[in-house]
Amino acid sequence: MEAKHEAHLHALATAVEQQLMTYVQVTSKTARQEQLIQAMRYSLEAGGKRIRPVLTLEFCRLCGGTQQQAMTAACAIEMIHTFSLIHDDLPEMDNDDYRRGKPSCHKQFGHAVALQAGDALSVAAFEVVLNDPTLEAETKVALLRILAEAAGAAGMIGGQVMDMAFETRGDVTLEEQEAMCAAKTGALIRAACKLGSTAASGTPEQIALADQYGEKLGLAFQIVDDLLDVTGSTDVLGKPVGSDAQEGKTTFVSLLDLEQTKRRASKLTEEANQILQHFPDHMFLMDLTNMLLVREK
Amino acid sequence: MEAKHEAHLHALATAVEQQLMTYVQVTSKTARQEQLIQAMRYSLEAGGKRIRPVLTLEFCRLCGGTQQQAMTAACAIEMIHTFSLIHDDLPEMDNDDYRRGKPSCHKQFGHAVALQAGDALSVAAFEVVLNDPTLEAETKVALLRILAEAAGAAGMIGGQVMDMAFETRGDVTLEEQEAMCAAKTGALIRAACKLGSTAASGTPEQIALADQYGEKLGLAFQIVDDLLDVTGSTDVLGKPVGSDAQEGKTTFVSLLDLEQTKRRASKLTEEANQILQHFPDHMFLMDLTNMLLVREK
Repeated sequence: MEAKHEAHLHALATAVEQQLMTYVQVTSKTARQEQLIQAMRYSLEAGGKRIRPVLTLEFCRLCGGTQQQAMTAACAIEMIHTFSLIHDDLPEMDNDDYRRGKPSCHKQFGHAVALQAGDALSVAAFEVVLNDPTLEAETKVALLRILAEAAGAAGMIGGQVMDMAFETRGDVTLEEQEAMCAAKTGALIRAACKLGSTAASGTPEQIALADQYGEKLGLAFQIVDDLLDVTGSTDVLGKPVGSDAQEGKTTFVSLLDLEQTKRRASKLTEEANQILQHFPDHMFLMDLTNMLLVREK
Repeated sequence: MEAKHEAHLHALATAVEQQLMTYVQVTSKTARQEQLIQAMRYSLEAGGKRIRPVLTLEFCRLCGGTQQQAMTAACAIEMIHTFSLIHDDLPEMDNDDYRRGKPSCHKQFGHAVALQAGDALSVAAFEVVLNDPTLEAETKVALLRILAEAAGAAGMIGGQVMDMAFETRGDVTLEEQEAMCAAKTGALIRAACKLGSTAASGTPEQIALADQYGEKLGLAFQIVDDLLDVTGSTDVLGKPVGSDAQEGKTTFVSLLDLEQTKRRASKLTEEANQILQHFPDHMFLMDLTNMLLVREK
C-alpha cells in the first residue's frame, strides 16, 4: 500500500477506535456492570484491520459526506462484527481459546460474561445510531434497516448457522459455499459500504454501486481467507495453517483448486476496482482492495 | 380476573402471537436457514403470559392509540424477552433443560442454534419496528431508543450479569437486590409500558406515568416470583419449589421475611394501581395488576 494510503487507513481506524471507546464506558448507569463493560471493551480493543468501519467512512467520503455523518454507523458495524466474533469463539460454536493472539473473550471473562458481552454489543450497535444527535430520524432508520438485515437471520447470523451445518456435510456445492459466504462474511461487508453511502445521502445509483463493490470484495475477502489457510504462514497468521483441510472443512480451495481459487480472487478484486471507477477520488479504496487480495493475514 | 378482562387479555395475547409468527418465517431469503427460523419460532411459541406485549398494547389504548400503532413494538419487546430466556437457559448461564414444561431451545435444537436463535431474535426485534410501514421515522427512533436502553448493558443484560455475580456472594444487600431486579426484570416491563404510550404519541406526563407504573409493577412481579419459590406448588409452577433457598440464592424472602415480602408486594401493587387512576378506562389493567399479585405461577 502507498504510504499516504497506509497513513489514511491508520487515521480512519484510529478515529473509529477512539469513538468506540467513548460509547462503551462504565457510567453511573452501569457502575454495577463493570465486568460486562470491561469484556465489551476488551473485545472491541482486540480489533483487527477495522475493514468494515473503514469502508463505511470511506464510502461516505466518496459520496460527499463528512466523517462525522458516518461515524456512528461505522462504530455500529464494528460492534456487530465484534459481537459475532465473541459468540463465534464460544465453546458451542468454534470453541476458540485465542483471537488475534489474545485469549478470546470467554477465556478472559468466563463464558457467561462473554455471552452477555456479545448480546450487549449487538444492542449497543443499534443504540449508538439511535442516539446520534447529528442524524435525522429518516437517516437513522435507513441506516439501521441496512444493519439489521445484514446482521440477522437472512445475513450474518444465518450464514453462521449454515457454516455450522456445512461442517458435518461432505457434499457442499460451490453454489452453497458461495451462498454461505455471501451471508456469513459478505452481508456485513456489503452493509458497511451501503451504510457509508447512505449516511452521506448518496444517490440510489451510488448506494447500488457501493453495494455491488461490497459484494465483490466480501467474496474475494473470504476466498483469500481460504487461500491463506493453505498458502499462509502460521507465524504471520497467528493460527495454524492447514486447519481447514485437517478438519475436512469445505473451502473454495477444496471445491476449486489452488490456481483456480487464486484466479477467482483476482478476478473479483478487478471487478470491485472497476466499480470504484464510478467514484472520483477512489485511489485509496483501490489500494485497499488490492492490499486485501495480497494480504498475508 | 373478571371474565371480560380475561377475554380481553386472551385477545391481546393471541393478536401478538399471530403477528409474531408472520415476522419469523422461512422465506426465499432464509430458505437455507430453516433450522434457525424453526428455533426462533419454537421459543416464541412457547411463550408465557405475554405480559410485556399486553402492557404495550394496553398503554397505547389508554393513551388514545390503536392496536396497530403499538403492534410492532409489542412484538419487539416479546422478541427481546424471548431472546433473553433462550440465552438464560444456556449451560453457561442457568443451564435449564426445561422452559414452561417444554425442552428449552438448546435441548431441542442444540447449543449453537439456540445461541444464534437468541442473537437473531435480538436483531429481529429492532427490524420489525424499523420495517413497520405505518410508523413515522421519528416514532420508530423513539420506540427503539426505549427498547435498546431497556435491553442493553444498563438494563436487562446488565441485570443478568449482576444476577450471576450475586450468586457467588452471600452478602447481597436489599438495595443491591432491588437494583439487580430493576435492571433484570424491571427494565423491560417499564419499557413495555413506555413503548405503548410512546406509540400512541402520549403526552410526556402520560409516558412518565406509564414508566412509574411499570417500575412498581416490575418490582412487584419479581417479588411475587421470589414468594412463589417459597409458597408455590411444584405442580402449578412446573418447576421445583424451594430451589432458590436450596441454591443459597439471595431473594426478597431471604432479605426480608415472608410476611414483610408479601406486604411489600401488596404495597407496590396498590401504588401501581393508584398511578392507573390517572388514565380513564383503566379497569382491565387494574385487574391484571391485581391478578399478577395473587398469581400461582
